[in-house]
Order: sequence, then C-alpha cells, then structure tokens
Amino acid sequence: MIIRTAEILCVGTEILLGDIVNTNAAYLSRELASLGISQYRQSVIGDNSERLTQTIKDCLNNCDLLIMTGGLGPTYDDITKETAAKVIGRSLYEDAEVLAHIHRYFKKRGRHMTDNNRKQANVIEGSIVLKNICGTAPGVFCEADGKVIILLPGPPSEMMPMWQNEAKPLVAKYCDKVLVSRNINLIGIGESALAEKLGDMMEKATNPTIAPYCKTGEVRLRVTASADTRERALAMCLDTVEDIKATEVGKYIYGYDTTLEEAVVNTLRRKNKILSTAESCTGGLIAKMITDVPGASDVFFGGVNSYHNIIKNKVLGVSSRSLDKYGAVSHQVAVKMAEGVQALMNSDISVAVTGIAGPGGGTEEKPVGLVYIAICHNGKTTVKKYKFGHTLSREKIRELTAVNALTDVLEAIK
Amino acid sequence: MIIRTAEILCVGTEILLGDIVNTNAAYLSRELASLGISQYRQSVIGDNSERLTQTIKDCLNNCDLLIMTGGLGPTYDDITKETAAKVIGRSLYEDAEVLAHIHRYFKKRGRHMTDNNRKQANVIEGSIVLKNICGTAPGVFCEADGKVIILLPGPPSEMMPMWQNEAKPLVAKYCDKVLVSRNINLIGIGESALAEKLGDMMEKATNPTIAPYCKTGEVRLRVTASADTRERALAMCLDTVEDIKATEVGKYIYGYDTTLEEAVVNTLRRKNKILSTAESCTGGLIAKMITDVPGASDVFFGGVNSYHNIIKNKVLGVSSRSLDKYGAVSHQVAVKMAEGVQALMNSDISVAVTGIAGPGGGTEEKPVGLVYIAICHNGKTTVKKYKFGHTLSREKIRELTAVNALTDVLEAIK
Repeated sequence: MIIRTAEILCVGTEILLGDIVNTNAAYLSRELASLGISQYRQSVIGDNSERLTQTIKDCLNNCDLLIMTGGLGPTYDDITKETAAKVIGRSLYEDAEVLAHIHRYFKKRGRHMTDNNRKQANVIEGSIVLKNICGTAPGVFCEADGKVIILLPGPPSEMMPMWQNEAKPLVAKYCDKVLVSRNINLIGIGESALAEKLGDMMEKATNPTIAPYCKTGEVRLRVTASADTRERALAMCLDTVEDIKATEVGKYIYGYDTTLEEAVVNTLRRKNKILSTAESCTGGLIAKMITDVPGASDVFFGGVNSYHNIIKNKVLGVSSRSLDKYGAVSHQVAVKMAEGVQALMNSDISVAVTGIAGPGGGTEEKPVGLVYIAICHNGKTTVKKYKFGHTLSREKIRELTAVNALTDVLEAIK
Repeated sequence: MIIRTAEILCVGTEILLGDIVNTNAAYLSRELASLGISQYRQSVIGDNSERLTQTIKDCLNNCDLLIMTGGLGPTYDDITKETAAKVIGRSLYEDAEVLAHIHRYFKKRGRHMTDNNRKQANVIEGSIVLKNICGTAPGVFCEADGKVIILLPGPPSEMMPMWQNEAKPLVAKYCDKVLVSRNINLIGIGESALAEKLGDMMEKATNPTIAPYCKTGEVRLRVTASADTRERALAMCLDTVEDIKATEVGKYIYGYDTTLEEAVVNTLRRKNKILSTAESCTGGLIAKMITDVPGASDVFFGGVNSYHNIIKNKVLGVSSRSLDKYGAVSHQVAVKMAEGVQALMNSDISVAVTGIAGPGGGTEEKPVGLVYIAICHNGKTTVKKYKFGHTLSREKIRELTAVNALTDVLEAIK
C-alpha cells in the first residue's frame, strides 16, 4: 500500500480542558508534510472509550494513516491502546522485552516501579513495538485492513524521539511522493498588502503552492512543491522563490527558512559582531530567544536583566538623575541602558528595551504598551518609540517588544 | 435553548502544515470549561471549501455550540464566513459600520487599505457582529436551527479580546451549569506513584472529577466540579482538595492554581525576599519566566546572562583560574556565579545555572544535559548536579534547567 493521506488524533481530556497546548499535532503535521503525506484533519478526543472508538473508525475510513498520541500511560484513564486494538479486532499481550525495559527504567532512576506501570508492557498482537528511550510506555506500529495505525505517547519528549527513530523510517517505506517547503520571511509588510502585491500569483500557484501566514511582527510565505524526488521538489521550490524575489515584495525579504533569532545570530556571525542585551520589560526574553539558537555563544556574550531601577543604576550606570527626571521608561534611559551594557560587556552592538508590559503600571502619559528600544552600534545610539496599545496582554507586549528589538538589531547590522 | 456541548473547529492549512501551534483551541477550551460547557472534540481543517462544509455539518449534528476560528481574513483562502453562511442557508451583506471601522483602522496606522480588505466587511444576515478591537476582521454570533455558531479570527491577539468582550457574554446567557476547577501543583512525585497513592479515589470521583497530568518537572491534579452556581461548584472543589491534602500525597503539594513561577514570586513576596539570577545555559529563560508574572518587580531586581566566560569573569567576578581549572560547567563556577550576582545585585537569594544544553559542546566527561544549579541564600551556597540526558532537545534541557532552578529557589525559601 501507499500512504497518501493521514489524520492525527490526539487523545486526552487535559487537551479538551485546555490544560495543555497540543504541540504534538503541530510537530507531527510538519513531519507528515515533509514525507509528502497530505493531512486533511486533526482531531482531539477525551479519555472516553465510546467516543474514541467511533472516532478511530471514522478516521480509518477517511485516510491511509492514523497517528494517535496520548493515553498510553499507566493510569486508569489511559485507554488508547485497548480501544485501538478492539477497533481492529486484535488482542493485547504482555511483551517481556518491554516489561524488562520498564523495570530497567525505574531501577536506573532509583525509583520504585508501581504495579500500574506493568499495564504499559501490553502491546497489540501482530504489531511492531516502537521503543521509548525517554520513558516507559512503548509505541505501536500496526498495519490492518490496508491502513496503518501508529500509537505514540503523549509527552512530547517521549513522542518526538520515538517518531524520529522508530516510526518515521517505517512510514517512509509507504511513501511515493516527497513534499518540500521553503519559507520566505518578510518584515515591514502586512498580509493583505503582500497578497495584493503578489496579485494572482498566489491563487494560481498549484505545485508549488504559495501560502501566506502571519507571525508576531512578521509575515511568511510558504512555498511547497510535491515531486517524486527531494531534489526535484527542492528545485521547483527554489524556482518559485526566485520568481517571488523578483516581484516588488522582494525588498521586504529578510531571510529564508529561518526564524528571526536565527537570522540575527547568522548575520552577526557573518559580520563578525558581538551582541549584548539590556532588558527591562522583557526581563530576559530577548536573550532567551537569541540563545534558543545553537552556537549563539559565538556572537552573544551575555546581557543584563535590569528589571529594577537599582540595577539600571548600579550595574548599567544609568544615573539616578536620569531615572528620576525622565523615568525608567524613557528615550533617555533606553540610550543609557544600551550604552551601559555595551561598555560593561565590551560588545560591538547592544540593544536595550524599557517599557510598560502591564497589566499594571500604566499612566495617562505613559500607557501600558509604551516601549523604547535603543540600539548602540558604531558609537551611535538610536532609539525607537513603540506604542503597542493597552488592549494587548502582558505576554503579547513582551513578545512584540522582543521581536521588534531583534528586527532593529538585524536592520542595524545588515 | 441551553448550551451543554460544544465543538471547536479551527480552520487553516497553516495549522495542518504545522507552521503554527494551535493555541486558540487550548484557550477556548479553558473558557468553555469555565462556563460548564462540555467539549467532546476539537478539529482542524484546511482552507478547503468542500471538507469545511462537511465538517461544519458534522459538528452541528454533534453539539449545541460550534466555535470556529480562522479564515476570516482578506486573502483568497479565507473562506470560513462564506462556507458557514452557505451551510446554514444565510446570505452575506456588507456592513457599513464594519467597513467604516476597517477604514479607520488603516487610517489610524497610516497604512493604505487594499481592496481585498473590503471582503472583511461582509457579515452573515440575521447574525450579531462581534467587534474586533485589535484587527480588521469582525466576528459572527449566529443562532440557527437551535444551534449557535460563533466565528472568531485566527490571530490570538484578535480572537481573545473578541471572545472575552463580545462572544462570551452572549454564550453565558445560554448556560445553566457552572464548571469550576482547582489545580493542585505537586513536585517530587511521578504520575504513576501519585495515581497509586491516591488509589481508587481518582477513579471513583465523578463530581468533582480528579484528573492527573504531567508538566515539565512537575505533576498536577485537576479537580473539576459542576453545579448550578459558581459558589456551590467552588465549595465542592475545595472539599475534594482538602480530602487530597489529607492523603500521603499532601506533602508533595507546593501550590494551588498556580504556575511554578507564580509560586516563586508569591513566596518571595510573602517572605519579603529579593531574588537575582545568573544564567549561562538558560540564557535568560529563568528571568523571563519570573517576569512573566505581573508585579515580579517587587521581588526580582534583575539578573545577568553570563553566556560567555568573559562575562562570568568580568561581570560576576568568577576567577579565570576557576574557569580554566574546573571549566565553565562545574560545581565551583556555579557557586561563584551565584555569589557573584548576589554581591552585584545585593539580593537576599540568588540562583545560578551553568550547563551544556547542546546539541554541540558535549564531551565524554561533560555530556550534553549536564547542568549545575547553585542557590546562594543566608550566606550559604548549595549546588545540585543534574544529568538530564543527551537524548533530550536543547529546548527541553533549557526548560528542565529553568524549572528545576525555580523549584530549588522555592524549596530554599519555603
């Protein structure tokens, strides 16, 4: 059989209650796309045997491959394996090797293996057991009635390695097309303006397809081609990317297949520049984003989270006079913070942010959402004033501040 | 009519491609739960008219309330409004007030309103228009054939305020039960051990229900009660929470309805202590998590992201000798970092982390996943050594490091 279509079914009442965000679906979706498998639907079902049974049947009618995550654990409400087995008319047996692995797992961690963990050693007859190197519950790869069912654990730290090392290689054998995507990253243009500038280029594109989507502070265009080989699909993508580059949106492009933080780290490395950060309202978020990128230490020495005025004064050398006269959230203090951290860390370029993330702390004159971002580079310090608006959440204001700070760094060194 | 069951249907190929994580579903799920509305299923569908039509019909057969997000934008692949209208047999008309709002929105931002934006002014006849204070696309609240359909925009920054201010108050009028939940936060016990200690208490519980779930480095128990009034439901929850407190799991409880970072900030405030941070491998993540909590400035002055040894030496005063002799990732350097930042920021307690987040930089003797966490408190500095394992991702290792650092701070001041 050939796998062309798939559905992802995530099991867990905790998802339906909103206790956890379903990152597994996003991860597996990217993986399926890279294998050229079309996904028409994602579903989430609670730990309810009846509804789960119905949904599994429904999914198996609609697609070639059903990937389920969650509900493989030791507690009473973990019913995925039992329910899936019943639907395809298979029985469960206790796998000695899996049981031994679970014993080793607990022994290694000096923890006592409780009886309910034994349940996790049950696997579906006639299926391939998928090893769990990061946990106890094994996965299942099972072909039944011309369909493939894969069961993976819920915790992403267990699901991801199991998919990569165990399940993905098996699935790849069932694929005859390869899907390759390239993302074009743009700043300084809105989604609707982008759509208008590209005209019907987007609508007419079928293979490769061109799809726009927004991220905080930026817009992306995803070009996706389907072909028999990776090389061919990639070539088709790159041709379309060149076509888009040639249009008037070309000048808004800042990178390809990159995150903003990766673009900053890569550009700093290319320009051989060292960055430092001074953060107030973002309290470490900018440094965190930069150090999300492996190898960031080549271009980022460090930063100061000067959350309190005492630190702005004592560590960054912002004068008490400036803090009193202009206030912590001001053009002048942003300048001093950027120059202070640059002097302290002896970097080539520094970025400083100070603002009011809310929900409290806003005033008539300095409302929530007011942020100053300063860049100190080549002995010159420039400041931008942002008003993100008091209607946004604290989280959103901090995120927008960090994204704009990184964008300003990128523009300064470009 | 009374709304008892709901489905959430998110529209967008970008979700099926894994380009974005579906945080809207998690947010709306929490909101529905708080209104006492049971959610049996969440689905994601691409921008495909035929499949969307079928799924909307299917959802309306299964539940009283259908909430859809996404596909209200200006581009050609935004088809949610048109498709929903067709399914319920209503037509669209251009709403003058909405159109005026869109014009104002662009004018205010000094941006040119492109023609395709006009499409967003179309609303479904016989429906209530939901204002979008953070964007251009309005929402829709529509009762049809004894069902309620709500259309919300895809961007969370637009969807959330529209739900809170416009849609939620309308939905509340259709509810006759209130669901109240209380989360019990535990550290130092695994999910299976927790389940065993609670015995059949969890399985037998029906109202309130008791459900366990794992978060990085911790476990939670969610107690959920359904009643006619919020007061009654809350009382039922608190009784069950007391029962759980009385069992042997009681001693693992560190908080209620709180995140770890909130627990840290609140405990610091109660103990009247000031915290400072010195981060190497987490590069700002710990400070970021603390400052996620509004009002963190009461207990957090700031921190140093000493990502490079130069900063550990120059800013935190870790001797070059220690760095050379023991290496940056060592018990000794962790101690010096914690004491250094405490002296620099004159805080009551400081936490320092140094480790190897990977994927590169690991050695036989110091593998990826090795982390030292030091706490300096009351003139005493203690260090814990963690081996998170080289199989984990850089992101996961950084997250585990931050969670354990905050846990160590909490234990130190408790």
